[in-house]
Amino acid sequence: MFSGAQISLYPMTDDFVGIILGALSALDPYRPSFRIETDDISTLLVGPPDQLFPAMRDLFVAAAIGGRHVVLSAAVSRGCPGEPDDPICAPSADTGDQPPLDRRIAEAHEAVAAAPPTGSPVAVQFSLYPLGVGHHMDEIYGCIDFLKGSPVFDRSKNFCTRLKGDAGPVFAALAEAFLRFGAPDGHVALDLTVSANSPSAA
Amino acid sequence: MFSGAQISLYPMTDDFVGIILGALSALDPYRPSFRIETDDISTLLVGPPDQLFPAMRDLFVAAAIGGRHVVLSAAVSRGCPGEPDDPICAPSADTGDQPPLDRRIAEAHEAVAAAPPTGSPVAVQFSLYPLGVGHHMDEIYGCIDFLKGSPVFDRSKNFCTRLKGDAGPVFAALAEAFLRFGAPDGHVALDLTVSANSPSAA
Repeated sequence: MFSGAQISLYPMTDDFVGIILGALSALDPYRPSFRIETDDISTLLVGPPDQLFPAMRDLFVAAAIGGRHVVLSAAVSRGCPGEPDDPICAPSADTGDQPPLDRRIAEAHEAVAAAPPTGSPVAVQFSLYPLGVGHHMDEIYGCIDFLKGSPVFDRSKNFCTRLKGDAGPVFAALAEAFLRFGAPDGHVALDLTVSANSPSAA
Repeated sequence: MFSGAQISLYPMTDDFVGIILGALSALDPYRPSFRIETDDISTLLVGPPDQLFPAMRDLFVAAAIGGRHVVLSAAVSRGCPGEPDDPICAPSADTGDQPPLDRRIAEAHEAVAAAPPTGSPVAVQFSLYPLGVGHHMDEIYGCIDFLKGSPVFDRSKNFCTRLKGDAGPVFAALAEAFLRFGAPDGHVALDLTVSANSPSAA
């Protein structure tokens, strides 16, 4: 399975280059696990699906810690049939057969509850796209059930769901949505926006 | 059918609020056709699917014209079965039965060739997600065939395709990808990033 993300950081300040370059060292612990390529639009991370959200969390917290309004946008993908299989994308742990939805929801809640806090509050909205399966709405509704029962749920919006809270449990909830819903070897995409320090936040 | 987009503008400058507010009047001609709602993460446009990309084009060109590095990010959707049907989303023209892929590709090329230029160069990357159909990769590959034959094609990347050129034909190509590929009444999502004036552009 191929997995990875195209991620972009948008610091809303004249010093956007300085903030981006200053945050990049947060990716250092992940560099041995990932192939990383950057151009003028985004940075590609290719590697284990379960490490993508911790890497994005640490990068975003590092960029937001100075208090400027910063947004991270990412297109996250696993199992795309148009991409070659790649040993670097092997998950850290084998998840085995896919349990029924109610058990996956319970396990996702446990993972969010166990996530260490970072001290950084974030606002998130995202969409989950399980592709190529006839019952894709069942998986989406199952994922929404999980999210609505989670302490980081904020509200539903058209086309997406909002989360809020500490970046630790929020990014854990995103990882759970991405990893536990949709077929285990299927094609799942996730479109993510993370915001901190917005002057128009409620 | 329900159609719309969650869009966000990211001006990389201390005056990001001024640039966003200054660009909003570009949406005025579209306001009668759309329901528009804004929060601290994004602005929702709900309305005719064929008007979404012209509206985003005009908003983005207005934000970028001052020369600051600006990005627009959008999650665009049509036919989501979780959303109610809405008369405001009726397309301006009935497209009738869906022709075979090769004819759709030819028509898409004609539409891009006919798009008036704006004078604003942009760089784009986007992903198309035709959901809930078993042959979703056929539609994706058909769309990629169209894009690779288009003068605004830049290059393929993991998970997405890059376009570049004048905002006129580039946004026309995005609209063609969104409207002509995937089932006519099916659920299609498109994840879009548009960039202008990047200091790291090639």
